[in-house]
Amino acid sequence: YKELDAVHENVLQLCYTCPMYNLDKWSAAGLISSRPGALASEALRSWFNYGGGADLMNKMMEGYNVMTFPGALSPLPEEVFFHSKKKIESVEDLKSIKARCMGDAGEILKRMGMATVIIPGGELYEAMKRGTIDAFEYSTLASNWDMHFNEVAEYVYLSPVRAPCDPQVFFVNKDAWNELPDDLKLLVKTFIDRFTQAQQEYLVYESIQALEKFKAYGNKVVKVPDEVNKALAAEAAKFYEEKVASEPPIFGEIYNSMKAYGEAYDSMK
Amino acid sequence: YKELDAVHENVLQLCYTCPMYNLDKWSAAGLISSRPGALASEALRSWFNYGGGADLMNKMMEGYNVMTFPGALSPLPEEVFFHSKKKIESVEDLKSIKARCMGDAGEILKRMGMATVIIPGGELYEAMKRGTIDAFEYSTLASNWDMHFNEVAEYVYLSPVRAPCDPQVFFVNKDAWNELPDDLKLLVKTFIDRFTQAQQEYLVYESIQALEKFKAYGNKVVKVPDEVNKALAAEAAKFYEEKVASEPPIFGEIYNSMKAYGEAYDSMK
Repeated sequence: YKELDAVHENVLQLCYTCPMYNLDKWSAAGLISSRPGALASEALRSWFNYGGGADLMNKMMEGYNVMTFPGALSPLPEEVFFHSKKKIESVEDLKSIKARCMGDAGEILKRMGMATVIIPGGELYEAMKRGTIDAFEYSTLASNWDMHFNEVAEYVYLSPVRAPCDPQVFFVNKDAWNELPDDLKLLVKTFIDRFTQAQQEYLVYESIQALEKFKAYGNKVVKVPDEVNKALAAEAAKFYEEKVASEPPIFGEIYNSMKAYGEAYDSMK
Repeated sequence: YKELDAVHENVLQLCYTCPMYNLDKWSAAGLISSRPGALASEALRSWFNYGGGADLMNKMMEGYNVMTFPGALSPLPEEVFFHSKKKIESVEDLKSIKARCMGDAGEILKRMGMATVIIPGGELYEAMKRGTIDAFEYSTLASNWDMHFNEVAEYVYLSPVRAPCDPQVFFVNKDAWNELPDDLKLLVKTFIDRFTQAQQEYLVYESIQALEKFKAYGNKVVKVPDEVNKALAAEAAKFYEEKVASEPPIFGEIYNSMKAYGEAYDSMK
């Protein structure tokens, strides 16, 4: 995960990566990533490009010879909440499940009483087969179908709360960018925007196809109960409010900007 | 509304327009437009570009020297359900409201007992002032704020059902398109996709800002009760099923394709 250093030092001029890989530099980078209670794709893209998100990210990156492209987001449809062998019908049920869950979501679910462990994606199939875990999150419906996860878990739980989207970003070397003539700048930005949007649309389409495959195989596709969604959202809010108090100011600036934008967006839907 | 003829006859090579303006040619054109129970923006774009939507539209247009661009959609966030002087708390309440409501939504609400009338947008302010109508739909929050509609209606009702989005399309002369070299084809398509996506993001952002203005002015921003949303969706489904039975086959092909895609999409959310 050295892309950012490579772009900063102009070894690379541009990279496409997950902001969360740069938590060692900026604790706030994970806010613009797959995390509980974050903005879903449409809200995230418009926040990033018009609601001040790109400016805040560039502010976070001050001191580096790197900038982020407005528009250079690739939101996915929500990740699968969990592939699970056990039913999830209440917050209480979480406490009886041992699950692979990474990042902030893992920490938040642990606070809610879940036994969470960290396991690489490639080992999930075996871990489920052997009973090391009862459930796990991984990626999108389409990618998870390709991993044959239908064979190791009866239930596919869906929810918009744990990982509303999984944005990637483009990081660009500032000097290299500034040397480009204006017409090429426009072309690069336009193609990047077009690519990110097409990727998101295609992922939506792929997920829809994959959902049908899980059902046809016999998996039970279930929406997470409202009670669990609400409790997870509330615990996530507490978790991040605590971080706002302890992290550098930019963390709070980004968190509060996203939160306000998300509340306004939700009141419109 | 003669854009389509102009493009067909190569007077224009390209136009950006509302599909519904071509109902005189194709009764199915209105399906891919602002209509009750249609797909919202993310689902619509991915259906159009990957779920077979563009192919069906081009099939609908057979016999014309015109094609539609995949990706050339500009979905809006939902239109305002109604600016209203009266409360809407039940399906029953609809019957006591005289409202301006155009197109299919107007017909469907009339079937539900509402007194609907057709009035040009520019006359809505006066019609509300004079008491000719109690409520009206028009456009997005941002455009409606600019029309000063906050001054003539206390309630701003929001709902995802009446007009989930308002897609526009690009129509292109086939001969002119086929004469373009491949690199220019790519450029034109890319810029169009980028433009439509940016427009949609900006409209989301603008709507969020406008919502705050309505609230600050003193308007009551209210979500339409579930009961009313469900009844409207059910009546819309009946209305379109009847049309499928009486219109040319392409109508049913497009309607059923959108319906199946929407159901699959909703089961993922």
